Amino acid sequence: MQAQGTAFVTGANGAIGRHVVQGLAQRGWRVHGIGHGAPDRTDQERLGLASWLAADVTAGALSAVGACPDLIIHCAGSSSVVQSVNDPARDFARTVHSVVELLEFVRRQAPKARIVLPSSAAVYGAATHLPIREDADLRPVSPYGLHKKIAEDYLRGHARFFGLHVAVVRLFSIYGEGFRKQLLWDACQRHMGGEPVFFGTGLETRDWLHVSDAASLLISAANLADPSAPVLNGGAGQAVTVRDMIERLGTFLGQGRPAEFTGSDRPGDPQHYAADISLAKASGWRPLVSLDEGLSRYAQWFLDGGRP
Amino acid sequence: MQAQGTAFVTGANGAIGRHVVQGLAQRGWRVHGIGHGAPDRTDQERLGLASWLAADVTAGALSAVGACPDLIIHCAGSSSVVQSVNDPARDFARTVHSVVELLEFVRRQAPKARIVLPSSAAVYGAATHLPIREDADLRPVSPYGLHKKIAEDYLRGHARFFGLHVAVVRLFSIYGEGFRKQLLWDACQRHMGGEPVFFGTGLETRDWLHVSDAASLLISAANLADPSAPVLNGGAGQAVTVRDMIERLGTFLGQGRPAEFTGSDRPGDPQHYAADISLAKASGWRPLVSLDEGLSRYAQWFLDGGRP
Repeated sequence: MQAQGTAFVTGANGAIGRHVVQGLAQRGWRVHGIGHGAPDRTDQERLGLASWLAADVTAGALSAVGACPDLIIHCAGSSSVVQSVNDPARDFARTVHSVVELLEFVRRQAPKARIVLPSSAAVYGAATHLPIREDADLRPVSPYGLHKKIAEDYLRGHARFFGLHVAVVRLFSIYGEGFRKQLLWDACQRHMGGEPVFFGTGLETRDWLHVSDAASLLISAANLADPSAPVLNGGAGQAVTVRDMIERLGTFLGQGRPAEFTGSDRPGDPQHYAADISLAKASGWRPLVSLDEGLSRYAQWFLDGGRP
Repeated sequence: MQAQGTAFVTGANGAIGRHVVQGLAQRGWRVHGIGHGAPDRTDQERLGLASWLAADVTAGALSAVGACPDLIIHCAGSSSVVQSVNDPARDFARTVHSVVELLEFVRRQAPKARIVLPSSAAVYGAATHLPIREDADLRPVSPYGLHKKIAEDYLRGHARFFGLHVAVVRLFSIYGEGFRKQLLWDACQRHMGGEPVFFGTGLETRDWLHVSDAASLLISAANLADPSAPVLNGGAGQAVTVRDMIERLGTFLGQGRPAEFTGSDRPGDPQHYAADISLAKASGWRPLVSLDEGLSRYAQWFLDGGRP
């Protein structure tokens, strides 16, 4: 395990960022958080944050944290395909501009820091071969996916041109406690409302990874960071249909009504995703939370009020 | 030839932009210029500008021009490999952010406008096969080249996702009257100073295209603009060594001293470039200015004071 040190987590108050902060703190890192939102002192202590700065991720804000990081996990960035279609320039700013600013800070003030960029399976677009390997062609089908790809390209270029130590983790469908949007949150609400009706056919497949496993992979990937910018897929390595996932969740919520599907697609949503996670596993990481355990925990968290 | 209409030229006071403005005005377009600098009224009339707005290229500034463009040639953007290495974030902002802002304006206010993006041969990086075709791998070796590639990717994505009409022209080594930086301007000064000493080996090859031919290609490419985002190489289709170019220029300047080379490379400068210009020629365009004519005109312009 990597020696302890100082870590920055951007987007530290987001659903993934909070788990990353907790994971780092549990491993003995001193963790500074930056991003949107305002976790109170109790919440900061619970997460294990040494400090919190409410700010956009800019070189100036990162400098204002007042510490020199050994590790940065950049969880800031956009998280919605739909919003990226409605407002591509804003999505671009959130995903790409924050990376440009981060690297400006690192190049000038912390050139030895290891950087881990959570990217997205959306960079692959409509996959032709499943499971998807990291060397597959990148043909994103939404601004969201394109912007994640551009963020990767910029990071990779900086690593090559300036000798920075970076790694990329392409996260597939992350779910778990703390996710107050996206499919499963929506599904909880529809199940409890007694009208579990959803877009799509239900036959779309996704590779679901519990957020605590995603966080441990992001932390583990730091050990691989170098100027060659290695890329790892972050999934559980199994394809599960949207219908199966939603209906299992309904069971854990105590709601037995079968889900209905409209049959119509949402723009920018590919049909099938499944990750080849050989490389992630070769790094020593394993997903630890089974789908039923993860869904059970998520359902319980929702029933308990679904608070951050 | 395309029907007349309203055209915007960004970076309209730059070395390429000024030739594009003149070319469009001569073909009967009503041309609005936006960018850095302050051409006076006489200069604006000489170029054929209907209006001039001194501003960064933002969606707001483009909107403030107060006209709906049928065509936009986006000549704004960075132009220096060296500066891109020294200040990558600034280079990124100039090249990529201006494209993001431009497309925001187009998507919202002028979705039928045709857009031509002058890109750069630097997107190819160190080429493995010469002459370079447009479908070659893109492996830029400088932030400058990477940012031009990202600008292309963003433009291509917008064209696909939102049905915009775009075309990309990858310009090789553009030279000619108005270029007050880059190799040949430097060469004029060193020749006249009696010390023609240069970086590199002199054996590097480049594909030189006179700026008036580059302007006519950018204008011609507008006819091809569509959501598939066609890409054309912009060169003369012949490789000429840096030494040959510099010594020919010396002759036209009346300076016979042979050039000397240090033998050391500049970072981010590939060794060899030559363009396959089959696609550009298939569009009906031809380069009209021979190398000797172009160099003679450039030398005369320099000797006349080298004014914009």
